[in-house]
Amino acid sequence: MKRQVYLSMKSLEEAKKIFFSRFGPGLRTGIESVDSQDSSGRVTAEPIFANRSAPSYHASAMDGIAVMAEETYGTTERLPKTLELGRGAVWVNTGQPLPEPFNAVIMVENVHQTDADHLEIRGPAYPWQHVRKVGEDIIATQLLFPQNHRIRPYDVGALISGGVFSVRVWQRPRVAIIPTGSELVRHNEMEEGTILKQGRIIEYNSLVLAALVRECNGTPILYDIVQDVEEEVRAAVIRAVDSDADVVIINAGSSAGSRDYTVHMVGEIGEILVHGVAMMPGKPTILAAVKGKPIVGNPGYAVSAVLSFDQFVRPLLYNLQGYPPPKIETVRVRPTRDLPSKLGIEEFLRVNIGKVGERYVATPLARTAGAITTLTRAEGILRIPQLSEGITQDQEMDAELLVPEEALKQTIVVIGSHDIAIDILGDEVRRGGRNIRISSGNVGSLGGLLALRKGTCHMAGSHLLDTETGEYNISYIRRYVKGLKIAVFHLTLRDQGLIVARGNPKGVEGIQDLTRTDIIFVNRQAGSGTRVLLDYHLKQAGIAPDAIRGYDHEEFTHMAVAVDVLSGAADCGMGIYAAARALQMDFVPIAREQYDVLIPSRLLDQPTIQTVLTTVRSAHFRERILSLGGYDPSKSGELFAEVEEN
Amino acid sequence: MKRQVYLSMKSLEEAKKIFFSRFGPGLRTGIESVDSQDSSGRVTAEPIFANRSAPSYHASAMDGIAVMAEETYGTTERLPKTLELGRGAVWVNTGQPLPEPFNAVIMVENVHQTDADHLEIRGPAYPWQHVRKVGEDIIATQLLFPQNHRIRPYDVGALISGGVFSVRVWQRPRVAIIPTGSELVRHNEMEEGTILKQGRIIEYNSLVLAALVRECNGTPILYDIVQDVEEEVRAAVIRAVDSDADVVIINAGSSAGSRDYTVHMVGEIGEILVHGVAMMPGKPTILAAVKGKPIVGNPGYAVSAVLSFDQFVRPLLYNLQGYPPPKIETVRVRPTRDLPSKLGIEEFLRVNIGKVGERYVATPLARTAGAITTLTRAEGILRIPQLSEGITQDQEMDAELLVPEEALKQTIVVIGSHDIAIDILGDEVRRGGRNIRISSGNVGSLGGLLALRKGTCHMAGSHLLDTETGEYNISYIRRYVKGLKIAVFHLTLRDQGLIVARGNPKGVEGIQDLTRTDIIFVNRQAGSGTRVLLDYHLKQAGIAPDAIRGYDHEEFTHMAVAVDVLSGAADCGMGIYAAARALQMDFVPIAREQYDVLIPSRLLDQPTIQTVLTTVRSAHFRERILSLGGYDPSKSGELFAEVEEN
Repeated sequence: MKRQVYLSMKSLEEAKKIFFSRFGPGLRTGIESVDSQDSSGRVTAEPIFANRSAPSYHASAMDGIAVMAEETYGTTERLPKTLELGRGAVWVNTGQPLPEPFNAVIMVENVHQTDADHLEIRGPAYPWQHVRKVGEDIIATQLLFPQNHRIRPYDVGALISGGVFSVRVWQRPRVAIIPTGSELVRHNEMEEGTILKQGRIIEYNSLVLAALVRECNGTPILYDIVQDVEEEVRAAVIRAVDSDADVVIINAGSSAGSRDYTVHMVGEIGEILVHGVAMMPGKPTILAAVKGKPIVGNPGYAVSAVLSFDQFVRPLLYNLQGYPPPKIETVRVRPTRDLPSKLGIEEFLRVNIGKVGERYVATPLARTAGAITTLTRAEGILRIPQLSEGITQDQEMDAELLVPEEALKQTIVVIGSHDIAIDILGDEVRRGGRNIRISSGNVGSLGGLLALRKGTCHMAGSHLLDTETGEYNISYIRRYVKGLKIAVFHLTLRDQGLIVARGNPKGVEGIQDLTRTDIIFVNRQAGSGTRVLLDYHLKQAGIAPDAIRGYDHEEFTHMAVAVDVLSGAADCGMGIYAAARALQMDFVPIAREQYDVLIPSRLLDQPTIQTVLTTVRSAHFRERILSLGGYDPSKSGELFAEVEEN
Repeated sequence: MKRQVYLSMKSLEEAKKIFFSRFGPGLRTGIESVDSQDSSGRVTAEPIFANRSAPSYHASAMDGIAVMAEETYGTTERLPKTLELGRGAVWVNTGQPLPEPFNAVIMVENVHQTDADHLEIRGPAYPWQHVRKVGEDIIATQLLFPQNHRIRPYDVGALISGGVFSVRVWQRPRVAIIPTGSELVRHNEMEEGTILKQGRIIEYNSLVLAALVRECNGTPILYDIVQDVEEEVRAAVIRAVDSDADVVIINAGSSAGSRDYTVHMVGEIGEILVHGVAMMPGKPTILAAVKGKPIVGNPGYAVSAVLSFDQFVRPLLYNLQGYPPPKIETVRVRPTRDLPSKLGIEEFLRVNIGKVGERYVATPLARTAGAITTLTRAEGILRIPQLSEGITQDQEMDAELLVPEEALKQTIVVIGSHDIAIDILGDEVRRGGRNIRISSGNVGSLGGLLALRKGTCHMAGSHLLDTETGEYNISYIRRYVKGLKIAVFHLTLRDQGLIVARGNPKGVEGIQDLTRTDIIFVNRQAGSGTRVLLDYHLKQAGIAPDAIRGYDHEEFTHMAVAVDVLSGAADCGMGIYAAARALQMDFVPIAREQYDVLIPSRLLDQPTIQTVLTTVRSAHFRERILSLGGYDPSKSGELFAEVEEN
């Protein structure tokens, strides 16, 4: 089996240097003429000179009377002068031409009409007072804008006023986007809710790339999905290169997998500049030139595709239009834990960022390049340099922002056990146009307590049962969160139970069934709230753990447990109702537990936190929680306890 | 004559409070559904939950082989294991479904194919290694995005992947724009080059407003020009209010002029909230509500219209769409001179900004609200607070930027005598995609020398003749620029002469004609380079100034002199050929003078300055200057002298 290895991989810096020295700063698209009124946002391809002067006549700059300045000399408060309307003065409005032989304007406020035909003035006018003379704004032949100037809305005014009714601008770059892959299906060729055949994937990379092209003010040309057959891909690429596209993106087919003939094929019809960039995600990027046009082989994983686009295609598209990309906002952040990274690769780590106290803290999301939600849920990106083995939690560094910095200040970081109630809360706080963001990280209840202690979150979701006292969270806070006073609010009560296959084929009725020899169980990890709850109920029911098949098989989330049951790897597992509902499975309730949010008391005064608490107590929030099933919001928002620092 | 006075004028802050408490943060447009692939940039009108999980099956996360993890246990480098293809392992590509019963993937790099049917591995796999499990990215039912979330390009990926093929978003706000004024003419109803009838003006405010609306992602609806007749304006406003427009802008008709029935009329059909805002430009703004819709009476002067839009309409449009306006970039600047301002009015002063040495300096442009070029030529806006009488030149303050800060760092400030050669230079330095900006201010040659001394410009244009020595600029630099070493480069030689009416009706042939009794002259101000030159030639010809009619009538620019001749106020005046050409007038050459650029020697190393000098010496620049007529670029770029500090 022939497998493509990366031709000598380049650092990101080297790759950019190679690519942008071939497709350099002077490279532009073609030129087109547009009506000046439609030119805002476009870039001049040549200098623009005025065809007319503005004003094109001497015009009054004020509402008032036109006079001959010489006739007003000597006038004072004590020696006012009377002018005859029509002869010595005429009324003029702002913008009106100054009639001959007048050469000055006196403002209406300084004119007293004595009768229908006469006016009195009490001060002199100097020549050309309150008059806009010919060419005061624009002089015919003057340079209005140089070449490569990006036209702003008010520039349109100068163009039209200067008699320039159309302008020659750089065309918007056209980008051909070719999605390849026999497994791909177009979303608009299927009904919402249709079940995909095993192994089929809804294509969306090309749609994301098209949206990115539009964001860069380019025009995407979306090609049909091309089957994973070398000749078909070759034909599509040749067609794109021969079209009027300025740039061609081939999506997928750039990793070192068995179907990856792209490098070979592009090398045959053109020149490979770079294959493999020392960035992660984004490593399998191909940069090439075919018939003088830039070709980018964009990786198949969604996050890789976006990051590779940002590094290579985005700068190219701005360059083709003649202006620099908008500046990326950054903030100084401190990671919430050490972040080791592979030496020799520049890593783009997606992070949640929030301002807790005085500083911004960054918590990494999963590194999976295939998970688009690691981008959509992130507030920023930490770029760990190629020549670094990672950063430690006491190192500050810049994060590139994916949301405006203003939004960060309104972001509440919730770390701990996750529940869909937190999602609903994150939506409800935005009702009525409020701009509060909830950024949530799922690290389990204990993880949340540790984050509170480290000061890396505003609140933590927790459902830790003290099996000695039957009380939730309090004793854990005493034990794990030293030195902080913590307020504990009920978010909701919720049902925990056994997640079983649809129709409950094995007839599981309760915790006693777990010892049945025909039942394989899947467990949660030790230390999780759900595990504690299970062990408590097993003990109460007098069931020994080793009587349960699969008790040692641990998963880390409710969803992973549900998926194991769905795929048949297990018959049941303990989890919340929402996980069963998500996969349309059945559910056998075992217990109603307390799911609380824990907030350092010193933060309770913050307006955003206050808004969150008000929202939790609102009828809207409670109704939405109730309608999900498996929840009891009757105590939502109640202060359960305040645990003094110890 | 009935004249409208401002109903009690409000401060900008008060006006915004009144307007935005009526049209508040919860106000939105209607809702529409869009295909998710077209949703980037739009704002969710409701929370979006996933319809599908992604991946929807266990998928390989790597190119490699699928194995059963349990069968690989115990494998090491020294104890490799052989697997039979098809039974113990199968090849899988990234993204492919993991076939039953396999539960782990080993990367291709760690697999050695021994023969066609057998593979060797040298390490174990743990269960689910390199496998993307169902729902790893997205779990059906999870919240993808809350309400009022602005969709970014990669969010499109999460939507499609989560099975959400269309989303409900807020409609783009529709803005009806009604231009009023009987003097107005549409640019696209006239030929380029047509002469306008006296008193007619090319309408462009509505086009600028439309471009501003588009910049705010709204949809402008451009109304036909409405004649200045109250009933016609009323009818247009009622039609707009009754249409599907979300906002109505009436342009012009809002000042206190005689035709200003707008306030009265809008007050009759709705409610006036504010008439008159203590901002300058922008004072005549009207804010009103008609049938629950916001109506903005936008001032008639172009700059006023833009600034009023920015304060009232821009925030409204963003609000209607559910996200905040982009942040305005600012820099700390120091004014180059004291800037007095009227107490009680917030003044928006357009300024040129450049980084000279370590700090940003700001030089005000003309305050004329009717001159659109005071916006287009500005790099920023200084807002002088309402309760201030101005700022002094030692006060630092924030300027709101009209160009990206990056561009400022590449801006060269040229202050002094202006010449079109500076414009050509400003265009030529941008050739080939260079992003250097030339920001020029016209204060005359002496003004330029003073700016050099104060350190408020990078270079000055000067053509000051020493009538004792016949040498240009040197002695003036010695006298006016103390403490700085200055390099003097030729920019160009140019013709000065007498500007006369087209066809030279009075047959002016030279400087001797100035004493003719049928000739009225117009002079330049004392101290200007042109005045010095004239006086030098008069002296050489033995002509006494008082023998010339109009010698005492002074103008401040070449263009003003030309305009006086054009309008018949004078028969001729001294100026450069370019001014005559701009107004298509005739020209009688008198002298060829030296127009130089003066640069502090310590700045000569700066790459931008180097680029400017290289450009001045380029064949391109010289050819363009030559083609204008009246110029001799044969010495362009030559170092004429370096004047030591004294």
